Amino acid sequence: MKATAKAHTNIALIKYWGKRNEELILPTNSSLSITLDLFYTETTVEFDERLTTDIFYLNGEEKGTDETAKVSRFLNHVRKLTGDTRFAIVSSQNHVPTAAGFASSASGYAALAAASSKALGLELDGKELSKLARRGSGSACRSIYGGFVEWKKGVKEDGSDSYAVPILDQKAWNLSILSVMIESKQKKILSREGMKRTVQTSPFYDGWLKATEQELRIAKKAIEKRDFEMLGETLEKNAFKMHATTLGADPPFFYWQPATLEIIDCVQHLRSQGLLAYVTIDAGPNVKVICQPDDERKVFQTLNEIDSVKEIFVCHPGPGISYL
Amino acid sequence: MKATAKAHTNIALIKYWGKRNEELILPTNSSLSITLDLFYTETTVEFDERLTTDIFYLNGEEKGTDETAKVSRFLNHVRKLTGDTRFAIVSSQNHVPTAAGFASSASGYAALAAASSKALGLELDGKELSKLARRGSGSACRSIYGGFVEWKKGVKEDGSDSYAVPILDQKAWNLSILSVMIESKQKKILSREGMKRTVQTSPFYDGWLKATEQELRIAKKAIEKRDFEMLGETLEKNAFKMHATTLGADPPFFYWQPATLEIIDCVQHLRSQGLLAYVTIDAGPNVKVICQPDDERKVFQTLNEIDSVKEIFVCHPGPGISYL
Repeated sequence: MKATAKAHTNIALIKYWGKRNEELILPTNSSLSITLDLFYTETTVEFDERLTTDIFYLNGEEKGTDETAKVSRFLNHVRKLTGDTRFAIVSSQNHVPTAAGFASSASGYAALAAASSKALGLELDGKELSKLARRGSGSACRSIYGGFVEWKKGVKEDGSDSYAVPILDQKAWNLSILSVMIESKQKKILSREGMKRTVQTSPFYDGWLKATEQELRIAKKAIEKRDFEMLGETLEKNAFKMHATTLGADPPFFYWQPATLEIIDCVQHLRSQGLLAYVTIDAGPNVKVICQPDDERKVFQTLNEIDSVKEIFVCHPGPGISYL
Repeated sequence: MKATAKAHTNIALIKYWGKRNEELILPTNSSLSITLDLFYTETTVEFDERLTTDIFYLNGEEKGTDETAKVSRFLNHVRKLTGDTRFAIVSSQNHVPTAAGFASSASGYAALAAASSKALGLELDGKELSKLARRGSGSACRSIYGGFVEWKKGVKEDGSDSYAVPILDQKAWNLSILSVMIESKQKKILSREGMKRTVQTSPFYDGWLKATEQELRIAKKAIEKRDFEMLGETLEKNAFKMHATTLGADPPFFYWQPATLEIIDCVQHLRSQGLLAYVTIDAGPNVKVICQPDDERKVFQTLNEIDSVKEIFVCHPGPGISYL
């Protein structure tokens, strides 16, 4: 009735941007990510018949109604699989500092899916675990696996074919991912809200879907051939396209800040000097820079000289789910 | 055989962004502009049978082969209308400082069209003059008229229905247009090249065309109703959409610089305080801010406090072509 699991966060190279079903969290396009080594969540779940409600501890602190309700809603999906009615104590240690520029929902729900299903005696394979994690947060379905991972969007109404698959082990191709944190105000538009508004109102959304499908194919080809330039160009183009769609939304919005453009400019300048480094940007102002390990030091030093850069976290491909 | 004409520059509120015919300069979408009072070109053209070539003076200085060849190509269109074969001396005074953030091609070709056709004894009406100016530079066709002007894209292959029409006289609705100049490096991608790459490669171009058609209708409705908020929201959305299309081009590019985002942020902040001001941005990093005359001083002072702002030019609706 008790289990502990550990899951790492991931960074999308081909972005998940838009849902076709809000309730089941089904995406409009397939996406591609790298699971990272540096940031993770460890979660213990214990079901107990004596409990009269779910209890949620985050980093040792008992959380209030709203946050616990989210965890409960997720546990309901697991309980439904076994017909169980017991409540649980969930205890999470989140090693994803907010200041690191990664959402903790991906590693959080992946670890919760793994720990809670194991605690109830379910032996879910990666595919089933991925589908379960997806119900908590879309990108969590990719954190089940290590290395390069594809989330296949699926076409079925019930979401049974929408899950992640591993496409290259973390050890098979080492890359450097630098998370570049800038001085910034609070994010104004949450990604959930931003993608919804974009799907509903942006005249660029059809173009996004068509282009992303093609870019995913190219990115997978690049991974297969270990062609870093091809991968880098593709992921950077994909990120720019995602951000373009938000400028077409009604009302329009954008996640970029002045320092975001400074970092893009710096990376493109490095590239004009022959160093292969590429940017990707999620639903916020921070920039992630992808390069090859041999160039990591040079990229770090160059970015670190920019005044508006607050901190840089250097990550590499990390592992999938593990049980402790 | 000699005539002098004066034409003012204009700023697009609904952007001209993409050609369907490069040679005839026919646009893929209709556009809407305000002719401005502050910046203009004065051009004298004199045809003379003793000349063996065209000669071009700009601001009192005789120009070289490349620039003169452009003027000659334009004069060929006029000569063709009359069957004339004489060469001309063209003398232009350009009161559009490069540092003011406006292309001088609009006022330049509008003045050249008016002066050269008059010098050859042609009495072209506004429509014919607009079509002629268009052959030099697309946006020049709008500078024939003062105030608010629409360039109707037309549908014919030969361009005979692609010309500007006046939609509201300069005196009928006064607005303030602040051209905000930032410290910036040389423009990397010329607008001609940028729009071409966008039309050919951006998956967002279809969305742009559809949205722009609708936004033009709304903008014209707003002008008819003198609804500044409706006009402002529409022109800002249209500018963001134009810039979004470039992020989808292959390779992607963008005209914004860090200070561009600072100014957008400042204007949106003013708006959150209830002051109606809106931005538009052409193929470069500078921003134009549109507001009502009563708010002009407050907007000027607020923008002027931004460190990266180098200079601000305050314009108002100006007149169309005149002969001197």
